[in-house]
Amino acid sequence: MSDAVAPPVIDLNADLGEGFGRWQLTDDEALLSVVTSANVACGFHAGDPATMRRVCDLAAARGVVIGAQVSYRDLAGFGRRAMDVPPEELADEIAYQIGALEVFARAAGARVGYVKPHGALYNRCVHDAEQADAVVAGIRTAGGGLPVLGLTGSRLHEAAGRAGLPVVGEAFADRAYTAAGTLVPRREPGSVVHDPDEVVRRALGMSRDRAVTSLDGRRVEITARSLCLHGDTPGAAGLARRVRSALTAAGVRVRSFV
Amino acid sequence: MSDAVAPPVIDLNADLGEGFGRWQLTDDEALLSVVTSANVACGFHAGDPATMRRVCDLAAARGVVIGAQVSYRDLAGFGRRAMDVPPEELADEIAYQIGALEVFARAAGARVGYVKPHGALYNRCVHDAEQADAVVAGIRTAGGGLPVLGLTGSRLHEAAGRAGLPVVGEAFADRAYTAAGTLVPRREPGSVVHDPDEVVRRALGMSRDRAVTSLDGRRVEITARSLCLHGDTPGAAGLARRVRSALTAAGVRVRSFV
Amino acid sequence: MSDAVAPPVIDLNADLGEGFGRWQLTDDEALLSVVTSANVACGFHAGDPATMRRVCDLAAARGVVIGAQVSYRDLAGFGRRAMDVPPEELADEIAYQIGALEVFARAAGARVGYVKPHGALYNRCVHDAEQADAVVAGIRTAGGGLPVLGLTGSRLHEAAGRAGLPVVGEAFADRAYTAAGTLVPRREPGSVVHDPDEVVRRALGMSRDRAVTSLDGRRVEITARSLCLHGDTPGAAGLARRVRSALTAAGVRVRSFV
Amino acid sequence: MSDAVAPPVIDLNADLGEGFGRWQLTDDEALLSVVTSANVACGFHAGDPATMRRVCDLAAARGVVIGAQVSYRDLAGFGRRAMDVPPEELADEIAYQIGALEVFARAAGARVGYVKPHGALYNRCVHDAEQADAVVAGIRTAGGGLPVLGLTGSRLHEAAGRAGLPVVGEAFADRAYTAAGTLVPRREPGSVVHDPDEVVRRALGMSRDRAVTSLDGRRVEITARSLCLHGDTPGAAGLARRVRSALTAAGVRVRSFV
Repeated sequence: MSDAVAPPVIDLNADLGEGFGRWQLTDDEALLSVVTSANVACGFHAGDPATMRRVCDLAAARGVVIGAQVSYRDLAGFGRRAMDVPPEELADEIAYQIGALEVFARAAGARVGYVKPHGALYNRCVHDAEQADAVVAGIRTAGGGLPVLGLTGSRLHEAAGRAGLPVVGEAFADRAYTAAGTLVPRREPGSVVHDPDEVVRRALGMSRDRAVTSLDGRRVEITARSLCLHGDTPGAAGLARRVRSALTAAGVRVRSFV
Repeated sequence: MSDAVAPPVIDLNADLGEGFGRWQLTDDEALLSVVTSANVACGFHAGDPATMRRVCDLAAARGVVIGAQVSYRDLAGFGRRAMDVPPEELADEIAYQIGALEVFARAAGARVGYVKPHGALYNRCVHDAEQADAVVAGIRTAGGGLPVLGLTGSRLHEAAGRAGLPVVGEAFADRAYTAAGTLVPRREPGSVVHDPDEVVRRALGMSRDRAVTSLDGRRVEITARSLCLHGDTPGAAGLARRVRSALTAAGVRVRSFV
Repeated sequence: MSDAVAPPVIDLNADLGEGFGRWQLTDDEALLSVVTSANVACGFHAGDPATMRRVCDLAAARGVVIGAQVSYRDLAGFGRRAMDVPPEELADEIAYQIGALEVFARAAGARVGYVKPHGALYNRCVHDAEQADAVVAGIRTAGGGLPVLGLTGSRLHEAAGRAGLPVVGEAFADRAYTAAGTLVPRREPGSVVHDPDEVVRRALGMSRDRAVTSLDGRRVEITARSLCLHGDTPGAAGLARRVRSALTAAGVRVRSFV
Repeated sequence: MSDAVAPPVIDLNADLGEGFGRWQLTDDEALLSVVTSANVACGFHAGDPATMRRVCDLAAARGVVIGAQVSYRDLAGFGRRAMDVPPEELADEIAYQIGALEVFARAAGARVGYVKPHGALYNRCVHDAEQADAVVAGIRTAGGGLPVLGLTGSRLHEAAGRAGLPVVGEAFADRAYTAAGTLVPRREPGSVVHDPDEVVRRALGMSRDRAVTSLDGRRVEITARSLCLHGDTPGAAGLARRVRSALTAAGVRVRSFV
């Protein structure tokens, strides 16, 4: 008989392994000491085999869950240019990427634990049911019933739900929200939170209090099970570390969703 | 107590799925009704995800064993240009390709049954111990102890043997052999057998009598467990069919080595 | 003072050089003996440097005008997948392709005579003013005031006109037209004319009588200065030859627009 | 009648524009305020069209000569993996890259002033006459009789000389030399000079005194007309600036060779 309440729990995810050959982007080693879920680039927008292997080895050694960060085939555009890929082709491209990553996860003694689309594919799958279905079809081809990390309410989560795949919602501590709980589009003023202190505060509010204040001052409920931390900006690893410390100090348990 | 002798057995392998996007090369459907082992291109020299899936589906439906035809990353050169890829990178590139194919094999209810390097990588691994070791390291990263299809006596087979991987030798009915049992280099006159009747005769000799006549008229013993049929020339599927018919008619059992 | 009427004149254009490395698609040699304008793939959807050079050499030797067939960067999708490429990037990608082709045209003693977008870029530039402007900006970066081959009334032609570039309209003898003179979308029944005799008849009508019958039976005026012949289907070269013969026999002069 | 002696003159060249899409590598803006010759990546090992344009615009604005830094087609390996590209193909790939860059140089009001191979191609053309000839053939295809920047005594310079192309030798202030005047291979101890002060001293000695001390203490004459400064290491731009300042202070004129 106890009044004890389970402490709040949150997952921290970040994009990792987003270099290619000679080019590095993300500070994988530093971020892997902070996050609990690693969205590993699979070679289509970034990520070469050697980088994939190294990130998987590091992640496994630290108990970080490995996720497949799948993308359009677009190295030149870093996967940020929406593409009208026919659904069947897109599904197969998704499966291909998951399979390639699986090899390195397995070699590291781990496994691919979830899938998260990258960039333009992520954005498109918020609204485009056809491409969302294709991504889910690709995940099913890869097998294993992998959870899908993305925006709650997105077409992608709807498609995953219909297909019987688990869905995990994520929130962004450095993005402004509307009163309706959606992200303020990047092109609008105030859409991105640049002040690190404010990012930490919002991360805490989202995780502990399950809420954030919208751009127009309303309280918005946050149900996300994961917070996305950006890894490709200067100071990203330092900010991520601050977020995690603040969460832990406030009694929030940082733990992967898998 | 029987004098019965087991009938000779041979595997027939061919390169398949060597298109890319809009471009087709191999008559996959026709060849899959002939061969017992399909060397499926994995996207580095040829082979897009949709093609890989289609070939795996067809192969599985016909009981043809799926092999990973791994290559240097060289679409523009079709994997025919030797590349000084550092061993660690090469190993990871091999593993990546096997993993990607595994997804489609598994989705088709099958699995990747063996690995065969393509083009310049195949040729280089005959003599180059470092790259042979790298290929074997990549196969081990992918896991499952996959057999390695290649030239008997090659550095690749030696490396595979040291690593405890099964090796399977192959012979070429349309290539001339030296008295020492090695292939006559392509640049030399008479190195390629163009006459279809002669190809069929040699395939039969190699499979049933375990021998072939060298370019200078000696009898050369053939221990190969598999015959490689070329799939990317006009009339390839028709010739393959003739070879198989002749073997069967002569009492040779055509069966995969896996 | 003469009653002589100038004979009708038409240009014949076709997509050429659309192989890549090992893969061939178009029968370049046969088509170059028929067309007067060669839309040469520049490496982004198809076309490797060696193919570009060979096609330019052949075209120059036969007096065929060389055009830059520019595309999205999408070998895997053959340039058929619309991409949201930011306008500045798209402009630079267009210029890059033109410059690369210019080298081979010049080495053959010729020059790049015009520009025609390929596939998804062509289709998008019919309606999308932003991308049309980007293509035109790229053509201007390349310099030389190159004419733009495309659909009359398209955003591309409007953008080219505003920028002071010459525009050349083209028509398709194997595509159905609406009464308004626009192409019947491919997804609609009857949109493509498959009967070779009918294609020849329509080509003749378009060239000599400057008209075609719409899908619903109306007479549609055709002002196009060029007819596009498809080169990537079986029998393409044979049909092209028949079209040219019919035109010549009917007194139509087949001549490039440059 | 004058005792005046012409002051020593040296060119400073560096690799620039070696990013690709989202990835940046070289501090192009800072280096362009120091060097007199910019080796601009042309898209095969690095360098996308937008980057090429930006670097050409900056270079032209500052009077820096634009050179084509041509490479094997190998984004994944940054052009550092030797490839057995058939000579004719290699020649066409070189020409393609020069042509693509020429567009942006011209749009900036400048022109491509020279050619320098990158990475593995550079190294291979020191000893491999066939590939050196192919590079020269590509430069001739591109036209304009462009000078070739490289190692004095290399097969590349020999091939260029035979073809009537001007050659320009370069030296490396941060590399050790043998008594014979060749570079100490990178794998040997002491091959790279890491101390910035020493690099500056050697640059000065090479430029003003036309000499450097070999690894085993002998005086080696340096006839190079250009010094290569590395641009892809941290602090590269700062060191380059120090070198230029030291040269100028010592009365060496820093000027391009074109």
